[in-house]
Amino acid sequence: MKVEGRPTRTIWLDDDGWSVGILDQTKLPFRLERISLKTLEDAARAIADMEVRGAPLIGVTAAYGVALAMRTDASDPALKEVLRVLLATRPTAVNLRWALEDMAARLEPLAPGERMAAAYARAAAIADEDVAQNEAIGRHGLPLIEAARQRKGAAPVNVLTHCNAGWLATVDWGTALAPIYMAHDAGIPVHVWVDETRPRNQGAGLTAWELGQHGVPYTVIVDNAGGHLMQQGEVDLCIVGTDRTTGGGDVCNKIGTYLKALAAFDNGVPFYVALPGTTIDWRMEEGVGHIPIEERDAAEVATVTGSNPKGEPATVRLLPEGGRVKNVAFDVTPARLVTGLITERGIAKPSRVGLEALYPEHRAPREKTG
Amino acid sequence: MKVEGRPTRTIWLDDDGWSVGILDQTKLPFRLERISLKTLEDAARAIADMEVRGAPLIGVTAAYGVALAMRTDASDPALKEVLRVLLATRPTAVNLRWALEDMAARLEPLAPGERMAAAYARAAAIADEDVAQNEAIGRHGLPLIEAARQRKGAAPVNVLTHCNAGWLATVDWGTALAPIYMAHDAGIPVHVWVDETRPRNQGAGLTAWELGQHGVPYTVIVDNAGGHLMQQGEVDLCIVGTDRTTGGGDVCNKIGTYLKALAAFDNGVPFYVALPGTTIDWRMEEGVGHIPIEERDAAEVATVTGSNPKGEPATVRLLPEGGRVKNVAFDVTPARLVTGLITERGIAKPSRVGLEALYPEHRAPREKTG
Repeated sequence: MKVEGRPTRTIWLDDDGWSVGILDQTKLPFRLERISLKTLEDAARAIADMEVRGAPLIGVTAAYGVALAMRTDASDPALKEVLRVLLATRPTAVNLRWALEDMAARLEPLAPGERMAAAYARAAAIADEDVAQNEAIGRHGLPLIEAARQRKGAAPVNVLTHCNAGWLATVDWGTALAPIYMAHDAGIPVHVWVDETRPRNQGAGLTAWELGQHGVPYTVIVDNAGGHLMQQGEVDLCIVGTDRTTGGGDVCNKIGTYLKALAAFDNGVPFYVALPGTTIDWRMEEGVGHIPIEERDAAEVATVTGSNPKGEPATVRLLPEGGRVKNVAFDVTPARLVTGLITERGIAKPSRVGLEALYPEHRAPREKTG
Repeated sequence: MKVEGRPTRTIWLDDDGWSVGILDQTKLPFRLERISLKTLEDAARAIADMEVRGAPLIGVTAAYGVALAMRTDASDPALKEVLRVLLATRPTAVNLRWALEDMAARLEPLAPGERMAAAYARAAAIADEDVAQNEAIGRHGLPLIEAARQRKGAAPVNVLTHCNAGWLATVDWGTALAPIYMAHDAGIPVHVWVDETRPRNQGAGLTAWELGQHGVPYTVIVDNAGGHLMQQGEVDLCIVGTDRTTGGGDVCNKIGTYLKALAAFDNGVPFYVALPGTTIDWRMEEGVGHIPIEERDAAEVATVTGSNPKGEPATVRLLPEGGRVKNVAFDVTPARLVTGLITERGIAKPSRVGLEALYPEHRAPREKTG
């Protein structure tokens, strides 16, 4: 989408033809800094430190990380180690695993001398596929906003979102925000309630920034506020992203998503989750208690980073000395609270049957009866 | 409760016998500063700027504000104006109105010359009544923690609370935290999950600070995390405070309370609200859409104040330039999500019938049938 008026992707090949360029998302919304990744370690750090984040973008970055690693050592043991290092960067994101398994399947049969070129080609293809997928998600989600507009008349359609599932989380378009960008570009008046999304404030920082850059009206609220707004009829629909959706339709996403889904259910507000098929974990039925939930550093809760009056990044401490913290990064929203899953193939009911109807190739072999 | 090892109240008469001492709660948890209120304007500012906050403490501060005003002008018009000024400081808190109506009823019949002494005496009595009420709330809530302990064995009882309804919100003991302090003082192992409570962080700042000062184990979590913890069985019960509870049992409290009540209901976790009878609005049945909800300054969401590495207070901006904010301070939790109301007279069902059983003097005259 647009940054400073120019169409921009979140990851690209630099002019040297092999370094990988990214936006340092830890610096947003205060500074627009581009970083050049040149080694496996650069790529692993970018993922672990959340310079890139968002399930699809993590997958593409990992794929390019493999390509960077193949430049220095494309042997079988090196390839194995590269996959291990990258897989360990973020334990929850399922399409990190998907991207790495895809790379492994393509590179392992090749001779070491062929692996580097193949890795770059495949990483670029994964990036392009992501853009195409997100555009398709946007097309399938757009009618939900158009339908809400019919009910609202001239008033803008109010969509609530949590965390950042915008183009910054992907290569372009985003998942949850793709239908919103399409509606906006089509002239439908749309306004986004942006959950701040503590502890890392990806809503207040990233979602607000990217919506503002593209010109979509938005209002930032604290994570506590969405329930009240829904009670007051100020939310027409919710659209969020996901890091992993189970085959049964349970949705693992940024901590706090579950609370918004409960409020949406309680108030009859449709609650949609936008996702590419690659984030579906077909091997898992129920998410609660089964999806490993990442715990992150206490400092993310104990402190917060913003910009000081001079516009420089500054970190302040929020807790009394010695205060203990637990920092759980994700939660699971049970399928029963989800209205639908907006995928690149259409909108699925949040169930095994619903998902298998769109992805028949993942249909589990059934025992025959009779 | 204890501060630096010494029993402390949140409001007191200074040694001069007429100035009113308070802790500046906007400076906590980083600095312990005492302020001396000497005029009506001081008292009104202390309430509006949240140097004092918490429904019961606001009421006591307003009562002392009337007393301070009577020192300079105790005429009928002055008294009327004083009540108007103080009532306007915070629109949502019902026992601000209660305290001011109580003061008016006592002072209006008196000659102006008698009003100052009567006002000081009544303000002191309201403060003492608050302490006694909270102690009673603690006694009535304690069995809930004892019962949870029976189920848990040696493991600590995990109580989740939102915002600050501790002794800092009252004169002493607190409301939601009173049963917790009593359990802790009685040797029952209790651990508190403290919601950060954006945007003003009264949980991370005040609740964490006061629990730590008194020695009660706690862990701070972001507001997004409570639902996940309940799903995982890590919360035995919730206890929160309230700024206004309707006669029908709907609970108005800090924004985000409703989301935690939804999660508690969804996971079968008991959800209790602790309150003195003075915060019940007997004239109102349903809260949603009827209780006026205060909207506060956008800066509370756009920025956050903590301490910088030198330990000095510092404010950082969290939003991109030009980012729009909506800052709603309270929400309403419908009675259907509330397990019980812990009052100074016992635990009530959250309904008109339940509340009237404990407060028969507020029983509405019924039309006779037959």
